[in-house]
Amino acid sequence: MERTIQIASTGKYLPGKIVFSEELDEKLGVPRGWSYEHSRVRTRRYVTEETASEMGALAAEEALRKAGLSIEDIDCIVSVSGTMEQAIPCNAALIHRRLTGGSRPIPAFDINSTCLGFITGLDLISHALQAGQYRRVLLVASEIASVGLNREHKKSCVLFGDGAAAAVVQKGDAEGPSRILASDMETYSQGTDYIQIRGGGTKHHPRTNPPAEYFLFEMNGAAVYRLVARHLPSFVDRLLDRAGVGMEDIDLVIPHQASGIAMELLRKKLGIPEEKFLSILEDHGNTIAASLPMALHEAVQRGRLHRGSLVMMLGTSAGASLGGVVFVY
Amino acid sequence: MERTIQIASTGKYLPGKIVFSEELDEKLGVPRGWSYEHSRVRTRRYVTEETASEMGALAAEEALRKAGLSIEDIDCIVSVSGTMEQAIPCNAALIHRRLTGGSRPIPAFDINSTCLGFITGLDLISHALQAGQYRRVLLVASEIASVGLNREHKKSCVLFGDGAAAAVVQKGDAEGPSRILASDMETYSQGTDYIQIRGGGTKHHPRTNPPAEYFLFEMNGAAVYRLVARHLPSFVDRLLDRAGVGMEDIDLVIPHQASGIAMELLRKKLGIPEEKFLSILEDHGNTIAASLPMALHEAVQRGRLHRGSLVMMLGTSAGASLGGVVFVY
Repeated sequence: MERTIQIASTGKYLPGKIVFSEELDEKLGVPRGWSYEHSRVRTRRYVTEETASEMGALAAEEALRKAGLSIEDIDCIVSVSGTMEQAIPCNAALIHRRLTGGSRPIPAFDINSTCLGFITGLDLISHALQAGQYRRVLLVASEIASVGLNREHKKSCVLFGDGAAAAVVQKGDAEGPSRILASDMETYSQGTDYIQIRGGGTKHHPRTNPPAEYFLFEMNGAAVYRLVARHLPSFVDRLLDRAGVGMEDIDLVIPHQASGIAMELLRKKLGIPEEKFLSILEDHGNTIAASLPMALHEAVQRGRLHRGSLVMMLGTSAGASLGGVVFVY
Repeated sequence: MERTIQIASTGKYLPGKIVFSEELDEKLGVPRGWSYEHSRVRTRRYVTEETASEMGALAAEEALRKAGLSIEDIDCIVSVSGTMEQAIPCNAALIHRRLTGGSRPIPAFDINSTCLGFITGLDLISHALQAGQYRRVLLVASEIASVGLNREHKKSCVLFGDGAAAAVVQKGDAEGPSRILASDMETYSQGTDYIQIRGGGTKHHPRTNPPAEYFLFEMNGAAVYRLVARHLPSFVDRLLDRAGVGMEDIDLVIPHQASGIAMELLRKKLGIPEEKFLSILEDHGNTIAASLPMALHEAVQRGRLHRGSLVMMLGTSAGASLGGVVFVY
C-alpha cells in the first residue's frame, strides 16, 4: 500500500565507552578471538551514566539539526524502543521531557515490537501522516542492552551494544520520489520464549524475588534461526510482490543487525549480493530496536543511500516476528 | 479527521478474587470506611494465578464471540496495556500465542501510553484500517496493577484493580453511522514523575538492586489534579471543536476510571451531567489501560450505548498526558 512518506533525516547517539571484543574474551574466560568470531562485532558501546531517554533525545536532536528543523516543527514523538527505561510512564514521555522540557504538549507514546519497532512505527505512523493527522513525527529508538546481559550466556552476551537512533518522518511531496511501497509483519508466537527477558514485568515482578537470571536476556539462537530460515524467504517474496518490485531492483537492503553469522546466512539464503546488504555490526553490535534506524543513518552518512534509492528494511525480533518495509528513500 | 471505523464488539475478563475496601482498611491500618471514601471503589479484583496475557486472551475471546468472529477473522493483534508482562517480548506476542497457538502469523505489537493506550491504539489503528491495511484488528488491554502497589502510599493503593478488556475494531460501512470524528492527545512531560514506577527498566534495573519501593507505583495526586484541571477543559473544547459537535450533543462520556474524587471534580468542571458520565469504578477500581475499554464494554452491556450513540472517551495518564476521542458507536 503506497504512501507518499519521506524520511527527512536521521540521527544517532553512541555512548562514549567502547568495549572491545578482546575485553569480553577476558571477562567471559574464553579464548582470545572467541567473542569476535561468534558475533562479528569488534567494538560495541556501553553506557556509563547515560539514560535511554537522554541518548534518545541526543539522537533526535541530531536528526532535527540535519533536517534544519527544531522541536517546534514536530507534531508527535514516538518511542520505538524494545526496552523500557522505567516501568511507567512510557519511554516517549521521558524523551519528550528531554526535548521540550514540557513546553510543547505534542503527543508522546510508545510502539514496541522489540527489534522491529522502527518498522512497525514507520508503518503505523505513515498512515497517520498520509491522512494528515501529523505533519512531522519523530521516531526514536534508544536501548541499553548492556544492563540485561547474562555472562553465563556467552553467545548472546557478546552481540549487544547500547545506543540510540532517530528519524524525522514526514509526508512526502507527491512529485518527489520518496514513498513507502509496502510493509508487512508476521508473528510466529510459538517462538515467544526463543528470545526473552522473562522477568521485570507483572509475571515475575522484582518484589516477588524471582531468580536473578530472569531479569537477563535469554536467546535460543538455533531455534530462532530455524524459524527465521523457514519463514523469511517466502515473507520477503510476498513483501516484494506487494511492493511490485524484484530483489534485483532493490538498491540497498538494511537488515536488523542481529548477529554477524545469522545475517550472513540469511543474506545468502535470500540471494542478496554483499554490496547491497548493509552491516554496521562490526562497530555497533546489535542495539535492539535502535539497530535498524542506526543502520539507516549510517547508510545515509556513508553515501550508500540517496533520494530515490529503493530500500528494503528487514528484520526479525522477539515474538518471534518478521518484519519488513520497502520504500523509496 | 473523520474515519469510518466501527468498534464491532468488546469483551472483558476479571480475575476471581474480589477485594473489598473493608479488607484494605484492615490491611492498611486505616479506619473502617477510609479506603472507600478515598477511592469510591467498593470492590476490585486481584489476580491469584492469572497472567496478563491469559486475561487479555480471555477478554479478546469474549469480544470475538460477541461479534460472531473467530481469530481467523482478525488481521492484527495490538496490546494497548500500560504495563509489561515480561521485559521482552512485547505483550501482544504473548497474547497472540494464547489466541493462536502460533498457528496464524498475523502481526502482533504493543502501543503504550499508560492509561490512554486504548485511545492511542484506536486512533493509530483506525488510519491503518481506513487505508485498508487491515480489515479487523483486536485491541487488548490487560493489567495486573496489584503486584506494584505500595502499602505506604495508601491513597493510590486503594484505587487499583486487575483485569482485561478487548475490542474488535473494523472498517465501518460507509452508509452506517459508526465513525471516529476526532481524536487528540497532549503530553505535559513536566509531569513525568507525577505518576511513575521508576524501577524495572534499564534505569533502575533489578540487577543493580535499587530500593525496593522503586518497583512500586508512586503518584503525586495533587500535582496530577492541578495539571489536569488546568489543561483538560481547553483540551476538551478543542476536541469537540474538531469533531464539530458540542458537549450537549454527546450521548455518553466514557472517562478513564482514574479515581472517584478526581472523576467527580472533573465531571463538574467540564459541565457533564451525571447521567451522561459513565463510572464503573465502584466494582472495578482503576485497571490502568484496561479501564477505558472495560468502561466501554460495560456501557454496551448496560445498554448505555447503541449504534449511532455519540461518545466521548476521555482520559489522563502518566506522562502526564491527556487524550480523547469522539466517535459514533
